Amino acid sequence: MTYCVAIKLNEGLVFASDSRTNAGVDHVNTYSKMFSFQVPGERLFVILTAGNLATTQAVINSIRRDFDDPDAPVSLRTAEHLFEAAHYVGELNRREAHRHSTDDGPDQASFLPSASFLLGGQIKGQDHDVFMIYPQGNYITASPANPYLQIGENKYGKPILDRIIALEMPLDDAARCALVSLDSTMRSNVSVGPPFELAIYRRGEFELAHYLNLTLASPLYKSLQKRWNEGLRRAFNRLPRFDWEQD
Amino acid sequence: MTYCVAIKLNEGLVFASDSRTNAGVDHVNTYSKMFSFQVPGERLFVILTAGNLATTQAVINSIRRDFDDPDAPVSLRTAEHLFEAAHYVGELNRREAHRHSTDDGPDQASFLPSASFLLGGQIKGQDHDVFMIYPQGNYITASPANPYLQIGENKYGKPILDRIIALEMPLDDAARCALVSLDSTMRSNVSVGPPFELAIYRRGEFELAHYLNLTLASPLYKSLQKRWNEGLRRAFNRLPRFDWEQD
Repeated sequence: MTYCVAIKLNEGLVFASDSRTNAGVDHVNTYSKMFSFQVPGERLFVILTAGNLATTQAVINSIRRDFDDPDAPVSLRTAEHLFEAAHYVGELNRREAHRHSTDDGPDQASFLPSASFLLGGQIKGQDHDVFMIYPQGNYITASPANPYLQIGENKYGKPILDRIIALEMPLDDAARCALVSLDSTMRSNVSVGPPFELAIYRRGEFELAHYLNLTLASPLYKSLQKRWNEGLRRAFNRLPRFDWEQD
Repeated sequence: MTYCVAIKLNEGLVFASDSRTNAGVDHVNTYSKMFSFQVPGERLFVILTAGNLATTQAVINSIRRDFDDPDAPVSLRTAEHLFEAAHYVGELNRREAHRHSTDDGPDQASFLPSASFLLGGQIKGQDHDVFMIYPQGNYITASPANPYLQIGENKYGKPILDRIIALEMPLDDAARCALVSLDSTMRSNVSVGPPFELAIYRRGEFELAHYLNLTLASPLYKSLQKRWNEGLRRAFNRLPRFDWEQD
């Protein structure tokens, strides 16, 4: 499994991802799921990946090849709009998954190594934005009422995002919330695990403002885990007591 | 959907359930999913239900009929052990679902109105315990390392249980934690909704210590929601800041 989240705020974008992959519980590995592509002063993209590792690697390889090929008909370097970049990644995704799919008729089990992606960034002259790209190649964007997108194991880490994330909050705060969301997910699902990657993009800068790779031993991560546990316990202890006499 | 949780602590048991049912998003209703059966001074059972409403109603009706029938070959009144009661409910569940299933061959879509249950309680002379009963009729119990069981939409509300629930905690505290877990689930999944039912069983009493039915307008529930939000926000604001100068 995987857990990745991308948050679109007024000030910019926040990306966070775990790095655990598995092919069965007896084949667990660590791979980065965060990739960035940059043309200084002009455009920046961050891509987060979930799903079949062969497919996500093939898609990222194709994106890299096209990015460095001036003759590529379309690439992250030449796409004129963010949604065109999402369309491009979606097409690569669909094509790559189907290239290795098997479907031997209605009585046979079929196999499709599907994947999904989060793509966020900014092209000069346009707003920053973030897209979720489905295995089928289509895509949706975030909205003011729904300022974040998730791929992979999204449920355990959603309640804290729903309670905290707001369009006008500082990027650093959203990044801390994303880490708590990752931490909650890791505790409830062993197929999501560290190190965690965190990237912060400030609108109009066309380069990452900050990037962190956090292991369980990172002082920041240990401190965040400890204080969050303490804070939750304090919040819990302050909940109203039942007044059974009144009932 | 549904969300029910049953917690087994040293002091006794806590049960909590939502009451929203739906057959598609355009057919939403409110039904209780908590049922109790009692022989004063001798035995008490609480049952929580999830899944196909026709199946859960039929199973509860059968349990009620058998409970009042002195000639029933097995019932919650006569089962000698809790696991036998779980086995009995599991058999009713499997039989009822298959009675209304359709399976017209490998080329046709099949239909099985499946359901699952949580069964907890105590029979005099034995420990209190709680079981989760699967659609197939088999069942598992909780464990000291895993002192709660869930049915329905279990993921959104799991992180807070994982952080707070401990065997030796007071029943009231576990009940407040169950309410927070329900509240988090309701916020993230519209198919889980109020009123919420809460029951507390203290070991050796063979009757419920407390029962609450909470709507969104209940002063206790409103106060709990408000304080939990405030507490989470306070915990969030106390998280360690990023020290970007050091990176």
